[in-house]
Amino acid sequence: MSPSEVPVLRVNQARLAETLHESCQFGAAHPYGSDTTETGMARLSLDDSDKAVRDWFIKSAESLGCKVSVDEMGNIFAVRPGKNNDAPPIMMGSHLDTQPTGGRYDGILGVLGGLEVLKVLNENSHETEGPVGVVDWTNEEGARFPKMAVSSGVWAGQVPLEDAWNLKEVTANHDSPKTMKEELTRIGYLGKNPASYRSNPFAAHFELHIEQGPILEDQGQKIGVVEGVQAFKWFEITVKGRDSHAGTTPLYARKDSVLSAARMVAAANPIAKRLGGLTTTGIFETKPGTVNTMAHTVVFTLDIRHMKNETLSQMEEECRAEFQRIAHEDSEKGVEVDWKLLVDSPAVEFNPDCIRAVEQSATDVCSALPQTHPDGKLWRRMISGAGHDSCYTNTRCPTSMIFTPTKDGISHNPVEYCSAEDCALGASVLLGAVLRYDKLRAERGNFGS
Amino acid sequence: MSPSEVPVLRVNQARLAETLHESCQFGAAHPYGSDTTETGMARLSLDDSDKAVRDWFIKSAESLGCKVSVDEMGNIFAVRPGKNNDAPPIMMGSHLDTQPTGGRYDGILGVLGGLEVLKVLNENSHETEGPVGVVDWTNEEGARFPKMAVSSGVWAGQVPLEDAWNLKEVTANHDSPKTMKEELTRIGYLGKNPASYRSNPFAAHFELHIEQGPILEDQGQKIGVVEGVQAFKWFEITVKGRDSHAGTTPLYARKDSVLSAARMVAAANPIAKRLGGLTTTGIFETKPGTVNTMAHTVVFTLDIRHMKNETLSQMEEECRAEFQRIAHEDSEKGVEVDWKLLVDSPAVEFNPDCIRAVEQSATDVCSALPQTHPDGKLWRRMISGAGHDSCYTNTRCPTSMIFTPTKDGISHNPVEYCSAEDCALGASVLLGAVLRYDKLRAERGNFGS
Repeated sequence: MSPSEVPVLRVNQARLAETLHESCQFGAAHPYGSDTTETGMARLSLDDSDKAVRDWFIKSAESLGCKVSVDEMGNIFAVRPGKNNDAPPIMMGSHLDTQPTGGRYDGILGVLGGLEVLKVLNENSHETEGPVGVVDWTNEEGARFPKMAVSSGVWAGQVPLEDAWNLKEVTANHDSPKTMKEELTRIGYLGKNPASYRSNPFAAHFELHIEQGPILEDQGQKIGVVEGVQAFKWFEITVKGRDSHAGTTPLYARKDSVLSAARMVAAANPIAKRLGGLTTTGIFETKPGTVNTMAHTVVFTLDIRHMKNETLSQMEEECRAEFQRIAHEDSEKGVEVDWKLLVDSPAVEFNPDCIRAVEQSATDVCSALPQTHPDGKLWRRMISGAGHDSCYTNTRCPTSMIFTPTKDGISHNPVEYCSAEDCALGASVLLGAVLRYDKLRAERGNFGS
Repeated sequence: MSPSEVPVLRVNQARLAETLHESCQFGAAHPYGSDTTETGMARLSLDDSDKAVRDWFIKSAESLGCKVSVDEMGNIFAVRPGKNNDAPPIMMGSHLDTQPTGGRYDGILGVLGGLEVLKVLNENSHETEGPVGVVDWTNEEGARFPKMAVSSGVWAGQVPLEDAWNLKEVTANHDSPKTMKEELTRIGYLGKNPASYRSNPFAAHFELHIEQGPILEDQGQKIGVVEGVQAFKWFEITVKGRDSHAGTTPLYARKDSVLSAARMVAAANPIAKRLGGLTTTGIFETKPGTVNTMAHTVVFTLDIRHMKNETLSQMEEECRAEFQRIAHEDSEKGVEVDWKLLVDSPAVEFNPDCIRAVEQSATDVCSALPQTHPDGKLWRRMISGAGHDSCYTNTRCPTSMIFTPTKDGISHNPVEYCSAEDCALGASVLLGAVLRYDKLRAERGNFGS
């Protein structure tokens, strides 16, 4: 397949920027400048602002002639018909939920970029070989309900529906946390369609996303052709000691869960450093949580990541051994430590055809730019540091991703930023990749699943 | 003053145990055995169970002929008249609030012991020289509103009334935490009387309390004659980093507030160990608090204690220097660390006359016991490891304390325990100390303040 076989189409930069920021009216938070677009986002999955942007998304997609459906995880599928509508759609997908102190691009660019692609197809009256659509996956962040990409996970048959429905919110600290199913029902997004790749198959899944790291910016490049995702695991670790008085309990008589857990968090870092991986603790809760009583229990999370599955396992084993040593040797009276696996996401290798479609599209789009890069290449193949819905779709359909530069590599933060130009370059690469893959499936007579 | 000058009275062990456990019906929690008295307590200051036990306390005191008043901090004063009622009362005081996972003795024994003393005076028709009473101080624990002994502090003129009223609850994690004043109003205990030693002076303050440590039990002794309280400070320490993605932010680019704060908590312990003091972190909160985002902010508490003011200062200085080093040297991109002093309680020396009254009473009470101790002494002079309302009263009136053994030294825990026999021995020492001090003030013609 040569680039000449697909029409040379580009997205509308100004329109993409305008609709992206229009969608961010729902859940805008944490302003950092005077412009209305200079805010972060706090659009937690299934909250009122998430309902509002879902309504907005469906209205937008329907106005473009899409057929919209919602499944029992609240995933929204907007599909534009093609020539052969018995074929499953090529989906462009990401998510509209954000971190509590998130930005305007993570996930949002992938969904809005998809809508922009459909607009370009419409205004060029381009009929694709099979259907093409956009998907908004529910609770990708895992920020409100603590399992990331849970809803693409259900769709892929990797997460049981009931487990997902019963996830309880963690961010609000209410006395009676809501479950996903309760919140899906409350906001009217508990769809009737099964959340399953079996009844709702895709021909392919392409995800446009900000890099969320510093590499493209540091290298002066514009597009990341994503070959895969590093392996990661999330753990919830419980340390149990004994609550007793801070003033009258000699050090020798203590079972201090906070002290032991703090030592564990500190000890994980040099293990990650030595093995070339990452460890992060984002949640650390003390119970009962008063100034002058030792906590009887600490619950903390540990996020560990590495490019290689084997080295990730080694990191886990070393942390387990060291935490056990701290629990029993560094505390005179000892504490108990218990590990619970929340997420296990092995290293992912995306589909070669999809990667090639993205690479050809990136070559095409970048060829029209001033050639500023010393090596003459404005795109690069790369590995994702973060997990995405594409990790799950990749288990059930050909998948790959497109990365755009991220200012200072900062993400999951209100100041997260990708310029309107870079957003548009990424969306044009998405458009070209979808058109290339659409041709490929027709030429092969293989309309997917 | 010789013991023969005061009547030899003893409290009623069974009655004291019965009323103590009767009062614990309000706020009983965390059962650990099958007996109804085998529970801990969760009677947080100014909650519904605290209101209930206050109502019960007032009814009990009034039935004993006391005049009861409530001040604007909700402190309750129950006073039994004496011969000279122009004189200020000798007060027996402690508190009825508990930790969220507290026991049935901390504070409660001091108030119920006081009521039992009044009952014995009544049934022996003993008229004291001046009035004698019982006080219940509000929010001694500092567990719900984060300033311990705040209400005796207001009474002593050491804590401004408005600061106390505006304290916000910390335990419930509500979106809109209640203030002390709001909760005093809600439960009907915002009294009209000024909370002040000026308008409401005491002749003296005696506090019966469980030791909350292992010393009396380890030494096979029954009574602690408390000479003073170790120095302590409470700090709230804020560590600010930057929230960014756990998977895409290389270690070199991180401002990881959790990692730095964990290192600080771990680093405080060896400083305390080396200098013979104590450090405890009971609260450690991460914001925003999600698994795969570095927290931008950690707020943790640090409780530091030492027998000597000077060494406590040294501990603080060493912690400040080490935390600063960790913030700037151990984190490539650095974090900011900020200290806020919540409580500063210098070492306390109680009043020699009060200490002597307790010592004489302890000698008397213990002389009637089987002499099981190898050195022939069933009581000992000692220092308190914990702060108490008596630290504040000591600044405005002669004060001392009486300690009773505490099983395994465990306090601030549901299984906290002091036997009915030991509770009664302590209350009898309290009775004798009050009668001795009452005689002393009359002999000196000094009826206080």
